[in-house]
Amino acid sequence: MEHKLPALTWNRYGKSRVRLVKLRRPSTGSGQGAAPHDIVDLTIDIQLEGAFEAVYVDGDNRSCLPTDTMKNTVYALARHDPIAHVEAFAMRLAEHFAAKPGVSVARITAAEARWDRLSAGGRPHPHAFVQGGHEQWTAVVTQRGDGVSVTSGLTNLVALKTTDSAFNGFPRDKYTTLPETRDRILATSVTAAWTYGRADTDFAARERIRAAMLEAFAVHDSASVQHTLYAMADAALCACAEIAEITVTMPNRHHLLVDLAPFGLDNPNEIFVATDQPFGLIEATVRRSS
Amino acid sequence: MEHKLPALTWNRYGKSRVRLVKLRRPSTGSGQGAAPHDIVDLTIDIQLEGAFEAVYVDGDNRSCLPTDTMKNTVYALARHDPIAHVEAFAMRLAEHFAAKPGVSVARITAAEARWDRLSAGGRPHPHAFVQGGHEQWTAVVTQRGDGVSVTSGLTNLVALKTTDSAFNGFPRDKYTTLPETRDRILATSVTAAWTYGRADTDFAARERIRAAMLEAFAVHDSASVQHTLYAMADAALCACAEIAEITVTMPNRHHLLVDLAPFGLDNPNEIFVATDQPFGLIEATVRRSS
Amino acid sequence: MEHKLPALTWNRYGKSRVRLVKLRRPSTGSGQGAAPHDIVDLTIDIQLEGAFEAVYVDGDNRSCLPTDTMKNTVYALARHDPIAHVEAFAMRLAEHFAAKPGVSVARITAAEARWDRLSAGGRPHPHAFVQGGHEQWTAVVTQRGDGVSVTSGLTNLVALKTTDSAFNGFPRDKYTTLPETRDRILATSVTAAWTYGRADTDFAARERIRAAMLEAFAVHDSASVQHTLYAMADAALCACAEIAEITVTMPNRHHLLVDLAPFGLDNPNEIFVATDQPFGLIEATVRRSS
Amino acid sequence: MEHKLPALTWNRYGKSRVRLVKLRRPSTGSGQGAAPHDIVDLTIDIQLEGAFEAVYVDGDNRSCLPTDTMKNTVYALARHDPIAHVEAFAMRLAEHFAAKPGVSVARITAAEARWDRLSAGGRPHPHAFVQGGHEQWTAVVTQRGDGVSVTSGLTNLVALKTTDSAFNGFPRDKYTTLPETRDRILATSVTAAWTYGRADTDFAARERIRAAMLEAFAVHDSASVQHTLYAMADAALCACAEIAEITVTMPNRHHLLVDLAPFGLDNPNEIFVATDQPFGLIEATVRRSS
Repeated sequence: MEHKLPALTWNRYGKSRVRLVKLRRPSTGSGQGAAPHDIVDLTIDIQLEGAFEAVYVDGDNRSCLPTDTMKNTVYALARHDPIAHVEAFAMRLAEHFAAKPGVSVARITAAEARWDRLSAGGRPHPHAFVQGGHEQWTAVVTQRGDGVSVTSGLTNLVALKTTDSAFNGFPRDKYTTLPETRDRILATSVTAAWTYGRADTDFAARERIRAAMLEAFAVHDSASVQHTLYAMADAALCACAEIAEITVTMPNRHHLLVDLAPFGLDNPNEIFVATDQPFGLIEATVRRSS
Repeated sequence: MEHKLPALTWNRYGKSRVRLVKLRRPSTGSGQGAAPHDIVDLTIDIQLEGAFEAVYVDGDNRSCLPTDTMKNTVYALARHDPIAHVEAFAMRLAEHFAAKPGVSVARITAAEARWDRLSAGGRPHPHAFVQGGHEQWTAVVTQRGDGVSVTSGLTNLVALKTTDSAFNGFPRDKYTTLPETRDRILATSVTAAWTYGRADTDFAARERIRAAMLEAFAVHDSASVQHTLYAMADAALCACAEIAEITVTMPNRHHLLVDLAPFGLDNPNEIFVATDQPFGLIEATVRRSS
Repeated sequence: MEHKLPALTWNRYGKSRVRLVKLRRPSTGSGQGAAPHDIVDLTIDIQLEGAFEAVYVDGDNRSCLPTDTMKNTVYALARHDPIAHVEAFAMRLAEHFAAKPGVSVARITAAEARWDRLSAGGRPHPHAFVQGGHEQWTAVVTQRGDGVSVTSGLTNLVALKTTDSAFNGFPRDKYTTLPETRDRILATSVTAAWTYGRADTDFAARERIRAAMLEAFAVHDSASVQHTLYAMADAALCACAEIAEITVTMPNRHHLLVDLAPFGLDNPNEIFVATDQPFGLIEATVRRSS
Repeated sequence: MEHKLPALTWNRYGKSRVRLVKLRRPSTGSGQGAAPHDIVDLTIDIQLEGAFEAVYVDGDNRSCLPTDTMKNTVYALARHDPIAHVEAFAMRLAEHFAAKPGVSVARITAAEARWDRLSAGGRPHPHAFVQGGHEQWTAVVTQRGDGVSVTSGLTNLVALKTTDSAFNGFPRDKYTTLPETRDRILATSVTAAWTYGRADTDFAARERIRAAMLEAFAVHDSASVQHTLYAMADAALCACAEIAEITVTMPNRHHLLVDLAPFGLDNPNEIFVATDQPFGLIEATVRRSS
């Protein structure tokens, strides 16, 4: 009996983790008195969906643009793109790849590492930087035919508050041992992503959204991670009229109060053990009311 | 003007990375002559969706089962569950949490680390093991009301072939520099997941599917990662009549031929540099033809 | 013939990665108008050497203080220690463990994660923080009998300069292909450790040393990583009279200039690929001339 | 007053994480019926010490062999070296670099990843492999003038036993809360390194040493990690007459018995939580008695 080939019902391929660093150097002058350099530090993924059945089923590569070419394209297009905002560069890449034969969807994912300018002699230094931590700024651009969507965000923004955080009034079943608490450490690593209403948005809005979320985190009188997540999402929507919706993910990085009673000591919310796992994980999408 | 609260359009929460090790010890006898012990090593995530708006919007925790309770539940239910297959235990957990007030979807994700029995004196040792590498066996059980779906799979299965892999005949554009090759190293880390047609499947099928995929990887005359992925998916469907569809993800862990010409040496496909990034990433879903 | 037992020629044991977070809360007042909280976030390793042969050879645990007790001791001693500087707390721990029976050397290693205070409403917030990146402050205290040595340092301080860095004039052998360059990116992750001349040093010197090293990095006209490392070590010794010697480790996080010529483009030091491996690794110890 | 330059009291530099994969392909025949391929997968570090003061102090690179050249040298020398054992190849590299001007010590560190041959159709496949886990085989070769030392070892060998492990009879102080146990899980990740008496040793001894250590782990009636470490070291020395000394490092990967009493359940050593940190860390050097 003949073997009947199975159907390819979905496929996607591309290049992941293309590391691009672009310097923006003033065209005139040099030395320490010169105009300052800027640095853009991106990690880019390209993913294409389309009519690539022959590649999988027949081993026919005539439609298979090499992922090595995708990588080269990132560097070549970066040469003359100012990369003022990562979103605009990702849009240009998405448009380029969406025009290739057979491609139905081109998705560009970019993560931007942050560099802070160093100071020397009390002034900002023109070309020396220190890395500003784990936080990354993210963008996802998806192009389908003529339609494009732009999602911006941030990830690995680690924040902690030492009080104004409670967790009580929760239901108890036969497996519940957690005591209620009115004062605990709240620590998390914020990931957020929002979609702009228009592709010609001023992408500088990210800084405003970030600041609003952090301030909400700081001043909120928290009844739970969920409660604080919602307050931060609300603050983000208030800070930027151009976004309609935001999705936020906040793990609960538990800090457990150490029981010092066996050693004859009290522990008035001072001594904690930080734990990595298990962790609570809270996710939600919040949309502006129309 | 009054601030209009935004809407919670989606939410999910739970406990991630609950680490459970269960020993299955024979009830009679002890010492080295006793019946062998078995070990089950799981990392479990619980995720619940449901009517939890009040938790987010009002800070009202009356419906918020603590994630700490979820963790306790895993350990308590594991006490009398044989955990013969991780899928069955995940189904029991999903059913438990789906029955909680307000829950509309309960999803359990489990990853099983593999332990190989050690030998001593030429025979299998009853209670000593060595870890079988990075590979993990995975299961995702999703319960919605009365409906349940079970997806099984594996991840981090790292395989490599030193020949019978080519990549040529691909299109070239102005950014293409990759030479064609008829003989290269093909290395990947396989992730695969398949959904069983029935919840009462014999979950031992996983070993058969795994073996079929690896054999297909070994014997395939590869025109591309895509081509080999499809052959492996086809082999999986042939090996197990109870699965209708399989999704496979295979990064291309590039091994670049080193140019030794500057040193007056040839390199007849012998000396390679293994690279971590960037990497190609190939994904597809393949379905049995009806 | 009798089996002759081998000799235990060196041994060390202890607890690693004890995670301690201590809050310093003002004793009076509460709410947002209250005096600010401080947070100390430490990861501590305890290592003991001594006369523990019976533990290894005979399975006799009478001299083996459990590593679990070491962990408990960290939390208990932290309760009333202000932990104004991590060095002082590590000294207290070292003294405690060095006094245990059989112990000849007690070594405490501590790494301090950095938290930056958040602002809200334009002012520093009393109890909300954001994590200041990968950088950690380190201390190693070694107590042998009555003698104690204190080494302070920092690690994972990632810095980059976009110009004023060259590498040329190096020797060439038959395996050398590297072109000379007069303008490259210099990126590194600084690890440094220095030993204070006296145990009663003002440990606040760390900030001064760190600032001096970073300023030297920024303003140095670099002929190599080695050259800049030495300039930074010199600056550290100048910034703090109480240290006689400093050891610095600086990987060379290579940023490779992308060859855009195949695409008809120049690359005037603007487009780079950041690489993780392989990397150069430069280490040195520099001592104040007497 | 003139600034007095500090002294460079120690220095070392080189290239880290050079990734080399060498295929050994039979010179005649091809296709699946051909003689089998072998794969050698190495990560190599080169470190040189020597008279490099001018590089650091004066920015004079005339003696500074580029680390890029070191990388090239690894690939070029690998072309005609059979790499039958990683130690022999590391010795060749050490000899090469020790002969460079100014070098006083050349140290080569190599880690070998393990690949297991796949089977197809019930027979070993000639050129398909699966990665054998985290375990790596290690070698450190140090050349000083004409003298060379060779240290071999292994790392990341993760082993676990479910019984025949106790920890009791230990001293208790005011901070001790750990209960005594006569039956626990013992889990560890073994790192071991031994120095051969002669440089022309048969390096295949590693497999024998590894097997002896694992068998000792399995059959030992353990009173502590220390006790088992010593038994494993003793077994290694017995298994190979050519090694005089072995250093073993064994973290205690704690598996904590879960207290199920709050849920009305017993836990007869069946349900455990695996933890990552903190962990005990046990190290020792054991030498053959003369």
